Amino acid sequence: MANRSSFYSSLESAWDESGSCLCVGVDPTPDMNPDVLSANKRGLYEFGKRVVDAVSDFVCSVKFNHAHFAAAAQENQLCRLIQYIHEHYPSIPVILDAKRGDIGATAQQYAREAFERYEADAVTVNPFLGWETVQPFLEYKDRGVIVLCKTSNPDAAWLQDFPEDDPVYLRVAKKVQATANPNLMLVVGATHPDSLRRVRNHAPEATFLVPGIGAQGGVAEDVLQYGRRTDGLGLVVNCSRGVIRQDPSSSDYFGMVRESAKAYNRMLAHESQ
Amino acid sequence: MANRSSFYSSLESAWDESGSCLCVGVDPTPDMNPDVLSANKRGLYEFGKRVVDAVSDFVCSVKFNHAHFAAAAQENQLCRLIQYIHEHYPSIPVILDAKRGDIGATAQQYAREAFERYEADAVTVNPFLGWETVQPFLEYKDRGVIVLCKTSNPDAAWLQDFPEDDPVYLRVAKKVQATANPNLMLVVGATHPDSLRRVRNHAPEATFLVPGIGAQGGVAEDVLQYGRRTDGLGLVVNCSRGVIRQDPSSSDYFGMVRESAKAYNRMLAHESQ
Repeated sequence: MANRSSFYSSLESAWDESGSCLCVGVDPTPDMNPDVLSANKRGLYEFGKRVVDAVSDFVCSVKFNHAHFAAAAQENQLCRLIQYIHEHYPSIPVILDAKRGDIGATAQQYAREAFERYEADAVTVNPFLGWETVQPFLEYKDRGVIVLCKTSNPDAAWLQDFPEDDPVYLRVAKKVQATANPNLMLVVGATHPDSLRRVRNHAPEATFLVPGIGAQGGVAEDVLQYGRRTDGLGLVVNCSRGVIRQDPSSSDYFGMVRESAKAYNRMLAHESQ
Repeated sequence: MANRSSFYSSLESAWDESGSCLCVGVDPTPDMNPDVLSANKRGLYEFGKRVVDAVSDFVCSVKFNHAHFAAAAQENQLCRLIQYIHEHYPSIPVILDAKRGDIGATAQQYAREAFERYEADAVTVNPFLGWETVQPFLEYKDRGVIVLCKTSNPDAAWLQDFPEDDPVYLRVAKKVQATANPNLMLVVGATHPDSLRRVRNHAPEATFLVPGIGAQGGVAEDVLQYGRRTDGLGLVVNCSRGVIRQDPSSSDYFGMVRESAKAYNRMLAHESQ
């Protein structure tokens, strides 16, 4: 990892190489074990590795959700998967979606977990405890820190959109914009195009990680229209189930994953492509 | 765990047995390795086990911070420590301080992690993504779910105290009060006595996990005065470094941990004791 460039410059290269802002979320659930994997090849690592191989041509980033590995006591498989990407696809930056939110020595330990143990290129962070949560992650100057801003789920409005005239999510956006640090990003859901537009207005230079297209109901066109920066970039649009969940009985499961990633890649292609 | 009673009733018994609302946070950092542990007995499990043995007479709960184990890739030691408490001190409920905050299938995986993998009696949860974050944890009806409300760190005000006339932290408190579920608790820091008083006014029946006494500057007397319910209970006051960090060169390190826990136990004794 010592020679890797900063997260944001890796992302710029990966945008260019893939021609798209597609990120694939490798979030395997226990029911997602295709018949095509023989019994001794099942498990999170094998499934994840095959997904990564299938989508590598089409993505600007790969995202892993810590919860799915932690619940199964398979943190080592998460380490191995991230290592696998660093070795075989060194141009693809890896996001660890862990939504960590703590302070002081504990936040330092979470930063150590994300960047030293897992060697993730970027990690998602929850700002409920304030900027002290974010700071220890920023000490790793070459890594990305992606702060929750406006999430894709309906119930988030209760806290994030409050109060109406100066909502929490816009305060988070302004704070990130003010740092002018390209490695510091925002999570902005695809399911609220109007909020996406407002965040873009308040954080014209920031890059957004956008969950919520496909299964959650967000529409790719809206995300591109309202979320892009004036340079046409600035988006990492995550799709998980829409790509990785295919017919488990298919003998070409990972071919279908590949085709799905290819379709999303085009749907999320940069305008100049 | 099948025969364990609900978290809240375990807590009531432990309040009674210990005569106090002291909770000890077992958050070992790499520099916290006393000379009295021989080289082959070092590590998070051995240290934690000796701390638990030293404080068991004086606490209503023991809290573990996930980050410290995760950064060191020692989740198995955390599992073993919690098992050790369930076996040797079955009347002491265990809180996993993980501040999880996610939604849908991911939140379910985090609930599975806390309650099935670690077999924690309660877990801390971050409400930034709304009530959808909390719900999957509540499906485990016998377990405790402790929602961040007003944390002890200075920078938290930026989000939690906003806007002044109807701050986020009071909205969280009202929501928890409205559920009337004793297994659903609030995290309220010791460092803001006025906020503690306001949360108590809005959530008169809830139980609070209170971090921030000792090293962080919170004062035990304030916490008791402003945080107690009218029945004199309703508090779980955490102390970590103030108890577990002693002179590493002392030949009686864990005796000092015991004495410190005893002192905090008295400082935080129930009024009727």
